[in-house]
Amino acid sequence: MKTLNVGMVGYGLMGRAHSNAFRKVRNFFPGEIHPVLKAVCGRDEAKVKAFAETWGYESTETDWRALIARDDIDLIDIAAPNNVHGEIAMAAAKAGKIVMCEKPLAMNAGQGDAMVAAVEAAGVANMVWYNYRRVPAVTLAKQLIDRGDLGKIFHYRANFLQDWTISADVPQGGPGTWRLDASVAGSGVTGDLLAHCIDTAQWLNGGITSVTATTETFVKERTDSATGEKKEVKIDDASMFMGRFENGSLALFEATRYARGHKALYTLEINGEHASLKWDLHDLHRLQYFNHRDESVLRGWRSIHLSDSDQPYMDKWWIPGVQIGFEHTFVHQVADFLEGIATGKPAAPTFRDALKTDRVTDAVLASAASGQWTDVASV
Amino acid sequence: MKTLNVGMVGYGLMGRAHSNAFRKVRNFFPGEIHPVLKAVCGRDEAKVKAFAETWGYESTETDWRALIARDDIDLIDIAAPNNVHGEIAMAAAKAGKIVMCEKPLAMNAGQGDAMVAAVEAAGVANMVWYNYRRVPAVTLAKQLIDRGDLGKIFHYRANFLQDWTISADVPQGGPGTWRLDASVAGSGVTGDLLAHCIDTAQWLNGGITSVTATTETFVKERTDSATGEKKEVKIDDASMFMGRFENGSLALFEATRYARGHKALYTLEINGEHASLKWDLHDLHRLQYFNHRDESVLRGWRSIHLSDSDQPYMDKWWIPGVQIGFEHTFVHQVADFLEGIATGKPAAPTFRDALKTDRVTDAVLASAASGQWTDVASV
Amino acid sequence: MKTLNVGMVGYGLMGRAHSNAFRKVRNFFPGEIHPVLKAVCGRDEAKVKAFAETWGYESTETDWRALIARDDIDLIDIAAPNNVHGEIAMAAAKAGKIVMCEKPLAMNAGQGDAMVAAVEAAGVANMVWYNYRRVPAVTLAKQLIDRGDLGKIFHYRANFLQDWTISADVPQGGPGTWRLDASVAGSGVTGDLLAHCIDTAQWLNGGITSVTATTETFVKERTDSATGEKKEVKIDDASMFMGRFENGSLALFEATRYARGHKALYTLEINGEHASLKWDLHDLHRLQYFNHRDESVLRGWRSIHLSDSDQPYMDKWWIPGVQIGFEHTFVHQVADFLEGIATGKPAAPTFRDALKTDRVTDAVLASAASGQWTDVASV
Amino acid sequence: MKTLNVGMVGYGLMGRAHSNAFRKVRNFFPGEIHPVLKAVCGRDEAKVKAFAETWGYESTETDWRALIARDDIDLIDIAAPNNVHGEIAMAAAKAGKIVMCEKPLAMNAGQGDAMVAAVEAAGVANMVWYNYRRVPAVTLAKQLIDRGDLGKIFHYRANFLQDWTISADVPQGGPGTWRLDASVAGSGVTGDLLAHCIDTAQWLNGGITSVTATTETFVKERTDSATGEKKEVKIDDASMFMGRFENGSLALFEATRYARGHKALYTLEINGEHASLKWDLHDLHRLQYFNHRDESVLRGWRSIHLSDSDQPYMDKWWIPGVQIGFEHTFVHQVADFLEGIATGKPAAPTFRDALKTDRVTDAVLASAASGQWTDVASV
Repeated sequence: MKTLNVGMVGYGLMGRAHSNAFRKVRNFFPGEIHPVLKAVCGRDEAKVKAFAETWGYESTETDWRALIARDDIDLIDIAAPNNVHGEIAMAAAKAGKIVMCEKPLAMNAGQGDAMVAAVEAAGVANMVWYNYRRVPAVTLAKQLIDRGDLGKIFHYRANFLQDWTISADVPQGGPGTWRLDASVAGSGVTGDLLAHCIDTAQWLNGGITSVTATTETFVKERTDSATGEKKEVKIDDASMFMGRFENGSLALFEATRYARGHKALYTLEINGEHASLKWDLHDLHRLQYFNHRDESVLRGWRSIHLSDSDQPYMDKWWIPGVQIGFEHTFVHQVADFLEGIATGKPAAPTFRDALKTDRVTDAVLASAASGQWTDVASV
Repeated sequence: MKTLNVGMVGYGLMGRAHSNAFRKVRNFFPGEIHPVLKAVCGRDEAKVKAFAETWGYESTETDWRALIARDDIDLIDIAAPNNVHGEIAMAAAKAGKIVMCEKPLAMNAGQGDAMVAAVEAAGVANMVWYNYRRVPAVTLAKQLIDRGDLGKIFHYRANFLQDWTISADVPQGGPGTWRLDASVAGSGVTGDLLAHCIDTAQWLNGGITSVTATTETFVKERTDSATGEKKEVKIDDASMFMGRFENGSLALFEATRYARGHKALYTLEINGEHASLKWDLHDLHRLQYFNHRDESVLRGWRSIHLSDSDQPYMDKWWIPGVQIGFEHTFVHQVADFLEGIATGKPAAPTFRDALKTDRVTDAVLASAASGQWTDVASV
Repeated sequence: MKTLNVGMVGYGLMGRAHSNAFRKVRNFFPGEIHPVLKAVCGRDEAKVKAFAETWGYESTETDWRALIARDDIDLIDIAAPNNVHGEIAMAAAKAGKIVMCEKPLAMNAGQGDAMVAAVEAAGVANMVWYNYRRVPAVTLAKQLIDRGDLGKIFHYRANFLQDWTISADVPQGGPGTWRLDASVAGSGVTGDLLAHCIDTAQWLNGGITSVTATTETFVKERTDSATGEKKEVKIDDASMFMGRFENGSLALFEATRYARGHKALYTLEINGEHASLKWDLHDLHRLQYFNHRDESVLRGWRSIHLSDSDQPYMDKWWIPGVQIGFEHTFVHQVADFLEGIATGKPAAPTFRDALKTDRVTDAVLASAASGQWTDVASV
Repeated sequence: MKTLNVGMVGYGLMGRAHSNAFRKVRNFFPGEIHPVLKAVCGRDEAKVKAFAETWGYESTETDWRALIARDDIDLIDIAAPNNVHGEIAMAAAKAGKIVMCEKPLAMNAGQGDAMVAAVEAAGVANMVWYNYRRVPAVTLAKQLIDRGDLGKIFHYRANFLQDWTISADVPQGGPGTWRLDASVAGSGVTGDLLAHCIDTAQWLNGGITSVTATTETFVKERTDSATGEKKEVKIDDASMFMGRFENGSLALFEATRYARGHKALYTLEINGEHASLKWDLHDLHRLQYFNHRDESVLRGWRSIHLSDSDQPYMDKWWIPGVQIGFEHTFVHQVADFLEGIATGKPAAPTFRDALKTDRVTDAVLASAASGQWTDVASV
């Protein structure tokens, strides 16, 4: 057994999800490397101390530079807003720390390039928290695609629908609402929600080569949380694109925070020659599967309830018929990442893998601005 | 081509459903014998004439005896309340008419015996309108069971849930509410709804040999439609039983008109060693199917959308993906009945087949009264 | 009572659906004008005679010009392939016949303009068979939107997914497969499937003003049914577009015949400030409805099973809980059309209404060719 | 902050579920009393040590008497098979320990009486792990019923369907299969699965007063895990009953391990005058709700996706739209139990509450043996 000291940056939603994952991974997933919640860092000292007590962190910092400077920290996990990912990740890498970073990787692919260069130059293990790859149903989809069950792929469609910003009273900036402030978030739903869809899509179906996109900002002004003043909203409230994958299939993607009735409905569907697959986040423990090779009169969409021990990750949890939830995807990610360090076979998505998503979101935003089909940079 | 002159008794819901079936069967199902809507009979002359005009009947009668006496009538179809099934059917048989009768066959199995004797003595073709056997999904279930796909059967459960009599203001007796008057209906949900469940069950899974039952009348008094006076309600509002099938499987059945939110939710499920099936009337165009012999990680309930030409009856209708509805089950029944006459191979359920259901409902009512397990008479 | 003599052109799938609608409308929908199946016209004399016998047409023709020339024909119903809609409709109008026409109206909006001009110059009643408007669930959606239940609309998305042309062995041209021959069909899924989505969308949500589209032809060559030779496929196998509605909402549309597992899955969803609606053709008897004004802890998507007498058209059919199907939408359309003639208030969609769909499909095809955002012609 | 030292007995499935709950409760649920995983006890020393290491228990014991004898243990949690619940619980109570016990409380109600007497005489806090009460959807159901939303109740039905013992090769006795050995489990599905259904039912809908039941053992002989010999199976493989609640509503319950296709499908439905509710364990994060007081044309079953902060327990977890799972119900139970201790208001179900379930299961087994309606003992 080897311990690995974790230094967490951020104590919001993702700070909680990551902390929970580190804290419980070894109760369920055996492995040589045992993470220790060594320190958590946040700007508000009272809040960061309360968070440390709740989660059992041994110590706190209020400056991420101080955290990185500590010798007793092996891994820096960045669960802070998008605009600080780059600086922290590059400093951590330079200091020789293992780096984990919330998605999206960067404010844009240019910054992402620098981040990839930094972790690769430093030779440190690195990963981005695209946690939905490790929903068991999504992992099973990947296995089915990889073994060729779907045949030639014709269509991939995905959308991520929320409704939490419909009210014009939701402010921009500050805890809980920084995602509406373009200076902090970089973009709106493109980098927040569409990025998830793109990451899964390129993992399952290969590279997206070109896109044509549209974005919309339905509420043009919102109160700035800091100043209390009305301020122009510069993020995209909705973003959608059509595109093409390298394998010849068509892409249709959409993300919005204005789809009344959907809280976090990430849905994906892939249609192949022989079979199709569908999944959504609101019932994440199920995979929908249609197999054209089933006996003709008995063909139908199967609703696969993933809870059996031969389905991805499920041997580690409970018993057939009982479901896991959102938080478990983070546990899976930590388990795989630690295993990757132990075996020397890095778990995906690395920074380099995640950069591919930033290239697509850059193309989406560029196309939405120009109204033109835009190639995804391939470098 | 041969014509067959139909004399319909009754012009209520079932009168419409049967008339529609006779009227359209040859637009979709080719066959030698062509039914002709010759006469319709009902006590209210104005209403029966209006009905005849709507449906294209050539003539009307107000006395079923006169209808039976006519030489130009080949088939008597009884779409009248339960308490007149017996007398009409036996008179029609005696007159050498083909007889079709709405379900349930009789007010009780004793009367049913006499009806069976009458049609068999007369040697006339006969059938009871248990139309749900001919929902394509239910017919497919029968085919799968018959070819052995399910293996040994452990459980059969069915319920028929409605909610239209919850209000104590619904009267008893008269058009639309004769089903609440025991002197007309014989029983309440037992003969009305449970009878459907039992017919399908014994067709799919063999005979029920013994039952223990309970019934309940939630609203004890209702206004008599005829007199306007309050009168004791003598029908069962809810009826349920546990039982055993000849093949060793267990039965669990329920019918009620007090299940708020369900209009006509007839649901059946059968669990076998290798596979299970589920169906319900609210989405009658689908069959749910679970096959344990599917690859382990991909097992799930399939929702089979029956609209392909290789699925029962569906080659006669439209195109894949578009659904048929309730009325089509009656068309299928007429098509099969006429084919049975043409080929001399009687279509089920004959009066004799339907009598088996009356034996079970008799046992259910007897058990509910005595509180004891009761054998189903096997004669 | 007044009779109206119908002359049907075509005896394929739509010929059957229309004939069935004319034949049964007055069994369910009372009304002054009674259609009579007077004559059916088709090029193959044996087939057209067999069809006439099946459906009870009094006579047949093999040349549509002869049909139009007959004095005893009041209404010409065009259930023939797209490439003959224009010529027949204009000749019929000129002869003073009422004209009904299968969708899409025309091969392109230019031809559609001429057709509109013809029927309006002749002053004859006219309608296009966009039957999905009259699915009760879709009609209810329209009523809810019109009374303002949804509030400001943000998103409208629709797709129409089929899988019947995935095999490269499906030929082009001829009965059953003329939709793959561009010279007959005009376009592929754009005019066939997307047209349905666009008609409903513009009816429910107002005009589409601009689009950017993509199309794809997955199978490049197919056998010509007539010659047996391989021939280039010139239709679009898949077509999708993003666009904007006049009311500021965003459009996302897709149609394809390469979505394995979906036979005819037409799905639409509309997201408003206060409520959202969803519907699909595979369960056409249901409407999904989310109302944000429901009590907070009890908000959820309702699955409304339309079979009650206070829901659109349902007072004419059966009883609560039992469903109607695909064919009934055509009956509703005939009922409304005849009522429109009787009252002088034309039922929608008229030729002029339907032309709006052709304008959008023209823009879609133009955009797909140019790769540019394209305005929908507003004339 | 006060610590409370937990002594766990058992390290099987429930040992894991309980340990996880104690370990994570304070990461999510603030509270004064903080549980400490002090010691775990099991007969196999190697296994118990491995379990302690996995979960962070400070020490181990191999004899539960030694565990109870320890001064540093405040709470004994019994996660061992049914046949040892009584002895351990009574000894723990006598030693003044707080006692938590897996369900069912006892081998029968007679033993349960003694256990209740013991904890009440000792005056120690006590609880039984009927965890499904604390599924947020089930808790919400309770709140709706308690505030009168459903009105008069007519029907309550529940079933618990599994399929893991269909193969005759599953042995009886030993880890994983002790539930098939009557000497350890007391009964089969009656005490295992039906007990869950009964606990929830009596909590939601009041006392069950009488039952008539049937049980079946489909596989008559199974290999004894200990001896390798075939031995008669004395548990019930399936158990079902009809009954009556004190409030006049009807009960229909079923449990089985022979329902192919269902892994752990616990389903409940309650039908009231004004509204109905449905829930099942395979999608535990959803509650189905039908409200007859909704506008007539818009009535439908709502699928409520419980993940909002105003829904029971959900303010403590993640964000709207993302689901929790099975394990969280145990965390909720610990949180409420600790709060009950802190406030002096005991959380349900106490031993006395849980005893009511044993009285019903006793009546079920007696009725199944006698074939007679059986009153539930009310003492």
